[in-house]
Amino acid sequence: MSADIDAVAGQFVDYYYRSFDADRNSLAALYRDSSMLTFEGAQVLGTAAIVEKLVSLPFQKVQHKVTTKDAQPSSPSVASLLVSVTGLLVVDDSPNPLQFSQTFHLIPDGGSYYVFNDIFRLNYA
Amino acid sequence: MSADIDAVAGQFVDYYYRSFDADRNSLAALYRDSSMLTFEGAQVLGTAAIVEKLVSLPFQKVQHKVTTKDAQPSSPSVASLLVSVTGLLVVDDSPNPLQFSQTFHLIPDGGSYYVFNDIFRLNYA
Repeated sequence: MSADIDAVAGQFVDYYYRSFDADRNSLAALYRDSSMLTFEGAQVLGTAAIVEKLVSLPFQKVQHKVTTKDAQPSSPSVASLLVSVTGLLVVDDSPNPLQFSQTFHLIPDGGSYYVFNDIFRLNYA
Repeated sequence: MSADIDAVAGQFVDYYYRSFDADRNSLAALYRDSSMLTFEGAQVLGTAAIVEKLVSLPFQKVQHKVTTKDAQPSSPSVASLLVSVTGLLVVDDSPNPLQFSQTFHLIPDGGSYYVFNDIFRLNYA
């Protein structure tokens, strides 16, 4: 709930979606073998499987537009943080963007952070 | 990513929204003085302030309808878990439900769990 937390979360969110939209393979650097992704209910474990899942998503071109991002420290003892994002997903230049929500749990690791938890959902009206 | 995690998350989510919709004051039992709530961007710390915030929300009657719930263990060492929910909020019998997304971080505590992190957002199209 500090400016630091918000700054870290903001930098992460910007970097994550810029990387996602430019080259999903580059997201490998943000995960570890213990990382978990739940994507539309499908559970995937570990960097290789997570990147394979993200790369296999059936669109050629994608753009995330972040509407809200909220961050909180997730532990009283470690500098880990929880980041919750809502936004719009523009897929293959569709005129009808999809609403999404995504939660990341970031763990500090050698001056940077990796994604331990990642939960993604499209929100249908 | 186990049946246990899903069962705990399911029970928590059912209990939380049933309590919210019946009597918001009863949610006090689920928070601690270290708990954080970010509600539509407003940050609140501790049980008393969180319950005051929830009770003061300007509606008389509310019903949460859960669309999706996803859970993951949030730590390799502690039985804490992350629960992400999307759903619809029916306020004062409005015919136009609001979409919401909410993330809870649950920490084990004497055979039960409390909410350490709580992030709530309405999702506008």
